[in-house]
Amino acid sequence: MVTNEQSVIYLDHAATSWPKPPTVTDAVVQAMLHDAANPGRGSHAMAVRASRILFDTRKQLSKLFNIKNPNDIAFASNTTMALNMAIKGWLKPGDHVIATSVEHNSVRRPLYYLEQKIGIEVTYIEADERGNIKLDEVANAVKTNTTLAVVNHSSNLLGTIMPIAEIAEITRKHGIKLLVDAAQSAGIIPVDVRAMGIHMLAFPGHKGLLGPQGTGGLYIDPELELEPLLHGGTGSQSEAREQPQVRPDRYEAGTQNTPGIAGLKMGVMHVLNETVQNIHTKEWTLAQRLIQGLQQIKAVRLLGPKLGEQRTGIVAFNVEGIDPSELSFILDQHYQIAVRAGFHCTPLAHACAGTSATGAIRASVGIYSTEAEVDALAEAITEITKQYGV
Amino acid sequence: MVTNEQSVIYLDHAATSWPKPPTVTDAVVQAMLHDAANPGRGSHAMAVRASRILFDTRKQLSKLFNIKNPNDIAFASNTTMALNMAIKGWLKPGDHVIATSVEHNSVRRPLYYLEQKIGIEVTYIEADERGNIKLDEVANAVKTNTTLAVVNHSSNLLGTIMPIAEIAEITRKHGIKLLVDAAQSAGIIPVDVRAMGIHMLAFPGHKGLLGPQGTGGLYIDPELELEPLLHGGTGSQSEAREQPQVRPDRYEAGTQNTPGIAGLKMGVMHVLNETVQNIHTKEWTLAQRLIQGLQQIKAVRLLGPKLGEQRTGIVAFNVEGIDPSELSFILDQHYQIAVRAGFHCTPLAHACAGTSATGAIRASVGIYSTEAEVDALAEAITEITKQYGV
Repeated sequence: MVTNEQSVIYLDHAATSWPKPPTVTDAVVQAMLHDAANPGRGSHAMAVRASRILFDTRKQLSKLFNIKNPNDIAFASNTTMALNMAIKGWLKPGDHVIATSVEHNSVRRPLYYLEQKIGIEVTYIEADERGNIKLDEVANAVKTNTTLAVVNHSSNLLGTIMPIAEIAEITRKHGIKLLVDAAQSAGIIPVDVRAMGIHMLAFPGHKGLLGPQGTGGLYIDPELELEPLLHGGTGSQSEAREQPQVRPDRYEAGTQNTPGIAGLKMGVMHVLNETVQNIHTKEWTLAQRLIQGLQQIKAVRLLGPKLGEQRTGIVAFNVEGIDPSELSFILDQHYQIAVRAGFHCTPLAHACAGTSATGAIRASVGIYSTEAEVDALAEAITEITKQYGV
Repeated sequence: MVTNEQSVIYLDHAATSWPKPPTVTDAVVQAMLHDAANPGRGSHAMAVRASRILFDTRKQLSKLFNIKNPNDIAFASNTTMALNMAIKGWLKPGDHVIATSVEHNSVRRPLYYLEQKIGIEVTYIEADERGNIKLDEVANAVKTNTTLAVVNHSSNLLGTIMPIAEIAEITRKHGIKLLVDAAQSAGIIPVDVRAMGIHMLAFPGHKGLLGPQGTGGLYIDPELELEPLLHGGTGSQSEAREQPQVRPDRYEAGTQNTPGIAGLKMGVMHVLNETVQNIHTKEWTLAQRLIQGLQQIKAVRLLGPKLGEQRTGIVAFNVEGIDPSELSFILDQHYQIAVRAGFHCTPLAHACAGTSATGAIRASVGIYSTEAEVDALAEAITEITKQYGV
């Protein structure tokens, strides 16, 4: 593992990946030292280089997600902002939305806000305990006023992978737009917006794409027009009172995070080079190994898909008789193992998994994770359960 | 000058300051290498360090702006986002707003959007050619439904400084909230939210505060409650469908830009160490020198305050007979001088200054600018005008 923090075992990649490929940090520094003037706002050489960085990053993202026109990608500071851009920019009073019960609060809270504020309706398709939904329930939920389906590609708690292409078949038939929350899939499992029928894709820069925090974006199908979340200067059509129509300017008011985006470019290139399929295979294999290790421990209750089934590198679990917060504290203090405990911003998924009262421990692997690291977690849990006598 | 780009004369500080103090870049790198887990979302050591970075930065900003409680500052990715948070979060249908004719599009466009969308009214106080407004016109503009005044502390085109404390006296009398756009004043001229009567302060991280692009924030008076611009996960009160009330979480959904904010902290500390008053004096003196140099050239028409008057380090001008874009291109290509040409996202200010048809050249100095650099610009303009025979 490329580590700069001696001896920490970092298993919190679903929050933010770490460490980053050295090329990512280098690119951030180089941009700060040489290029980070205002992209799109000046004709001088440094400003032109900044614009180039943004364009090059859009091009790499387009390659990764099979997006035809790089200008259909708007940068955002995180997935939450991208989801707010999509949800608030698209929905109108009276619209009906289909979502699932494993959505993150970054989907549930904007939807609830619009329910209260402008009057929309939402149907949450109930996932089962392992995070799977039934496609016929999606089909049955369609109403005449359904204009949007919002689905996460993979649950941030359970690691379950949603059947996006199959959902898209249903929504396409009814002219419903499909928004995919790729917080836990971009760079982790293959995403192809055209093959999968995705109209909007919200993605983080700082998780599977290996870029710095403060980056992310939204792909918007060229046929969709959203009301921008931010109104302001774009460096283009300065005299107009309205936000310009031209993309990506329309959805990118204000100075962009040039150094962060320069780092994101290198992260995406790293992913393209490794290939998403290889990354997925590696992470899936590590997840299986971790599950096998944890299954040996009587007090452990694993959440999400079973051993051998499709999933991402997220493995959530509880240990009977030990509070998750206490457990994660012990892992951190005594074993230098970083995992996340708590409610993971997805109360509905906890309800599905039966962990609403307790929360859960979430371990999540990344591209630099090793067998020794996941083994260390299983061994630590074994030791702790012995000490607790559970 | 601390420069990493050999020989460029960078006079575009009003867009983004450059270069940054070396401590800023170092802090970004250190955060990426050691600390950039998810602040506020995990109890492990790295996540705790990330939270600490955010808190420390809020503390330094509070010192700079005389803010009582650091948690009244919410981070944003740029000033535009902070202004959108303030304007869209505060205004309700039927509200009346007082603004000025030198506001940036980051104020004018959100206001226009709300005029069309929810029905608000806006009165723009006309500034004179040099960017000054009359206080009695502000007082006369007050109506029974006036709930907000939005004023930039300093014009991004003219460099004129607005009498914020005097405006606050008027608004305070009528219970009107005062939002100040500090895009061109934070770290450049003294800002004291309590002494000046400011309820909301939108500021950039990447200009006068010397931090990286992708940073900025909004101070919100503890008595004000805004509807958040972003709804989503905060790591707190995960089970609630509403955005939590607790600050700063309420206004900071999604993963924050930890490395950028780490850099911002060092930028603010650099400013505190130099003192804003010294920075202002230095930049004002350089601006005077530049004005004196440009006044020698017959074809130059200077915008903004006169020689000797208060202003920031922005000096905008036109050269009769040479298009600003062409001029900035020549400055860039032949003299390696970086200035900005065009309309600067503030069409109303151009109307005041009589440059709506042409736009203008904007030169802006920063803390590392030198006398030799502003002299080089004046000399270049002299040479170019001779070559053009104007």
